[in-house]
Amino acid sequence: MTTARRDTYTPETLLSVAVRVFNERGYDGTSMEHLSKAAGISKSSIYHHVAGKEELLRRAVTRALDGLFGILDEEHARVGPAAERLQYVVRRMVEVLIAELPYVTLLLRVRGNTVTERWALERRREFDHRVAELLKAAAADGDVRGDVEVRLATRLVFGMINSIVEWYRPDGRGMSEREVADAVAQLVFGGLRKEG
Amino acid sequence: MTTARRDTYTPETLLSVAVRVFNERGYDGTSMEHLSKAAGISKSSIYHHVAGKEELLRRAVTRALDGLFGILDEEHARVGPAAERLQYVVRRMVEVLIAELPYVTLLLRVRGNTVTERWALERRREFDHRVAELLKAAAADGDVRGDVEVRLATRLVFGMINSIVEWYRPDGRGMSEREVADAVAQLVFGGLRKEG
Repeated sequence: MTTARRDTYTPETLLSVAVRVFNERGYDGTSMEHLSKAAGISKSSIYHHVAGKEELLRRAVTRALDGLFGILDEEHARVGPAAERLQYVVRRMVEVLIAELPYVTLLLRVRGNTVTERWALERRREFDHRVAELLKAAAADGDVRGDVEVRLATRLVFGMINSIVEWYRPDGRGMSEREVADAVAQLVFGGLRKEG
Repeated sequence: MTTARRDTYTPETLLSVAVRVFNERGYDGTSMEHLSKAAGISKSSIYHHVAGKEELLRRAVTRALDGLFGILDEEHARVGPAAERLQYVVRRMVEVLIAELPYVTLLLRVRGNTVTERWALERRREFDHRVAELLKAAAADGDVRGDVEVRLATRLVFGMINSIVEWYRPDGRGMSEREVADAVAQLVFGGLRKEG
């Protein structure tokens, strides 16, 4: 056990430390001892804030899921032709993924060993389904290609977007959220082939 | 330790068991004890075949890497306009990934904690670089779009292809290698937008 270094610890700062450790060691491989050491506060101080590591996981993935589902409530995701709404959602997914990088990274690594993990997987599937529905509607409108099966296309597009967590580093030297979002939108909708 | 169940064990069958266990538990989380139990042979029998788990890892990722680099030696990857060679390589990457699914899955999960893992990461980077060069040449020919930076485009295309290991299950009920390869080629080159 480590002695408390600061008594100004908030649930918010504890959460960000926990997410970092979960992403480094894996959720299963993280003990309360690891969290206590990383946060520099005692285990009993952590228990003052949360019931245990599963609550930290739930809060973290909730933050990622709220960010993603929030996109679907935005006006441009609700109003207009399906193809335009889809394009908007794809761009915003990239932006949210980068803005909430450690939280979305954790969400994407969830495996399903605990109730919280299974709930997170279920919510992810629900989000995927909502986007697949948008793609289906756009195909029905004749605005996107109909020759690639909707579920497969959705999986591949999510694969491209989600892969960003593997290499994007918010170090200020790299690309901005907007540049990555532009590139993803261009590739997802136009492909590599030169236009015109 | 488990008693030997079969004395017909070959390095090949041992390798396929090891890859399955590495993918399930993570390479770091796998002990010789786990391998011995999963293979149903004693640890000393395993040591008869290999020096240790790192050798099994090296053999497994070598198989994945040989499959991928082998593509670049194929005629259609060597002869013709860069854009066509690129399209061929993308399709073949999907086919190799599915044909060698557990081996490529393991390769993609390698983290870099051991010499073998760092070597595998280096070889992966080399392969990515070869494909990026092809994309660059195709852009220089004016055959693929030049408005998405080559390194970023390569990462996103690999992201889409590599995501297949997350959901593809070779259970005979799903899509064939060819169907997935077709869909990936269509999306990577043409995007979702309807052609014509």
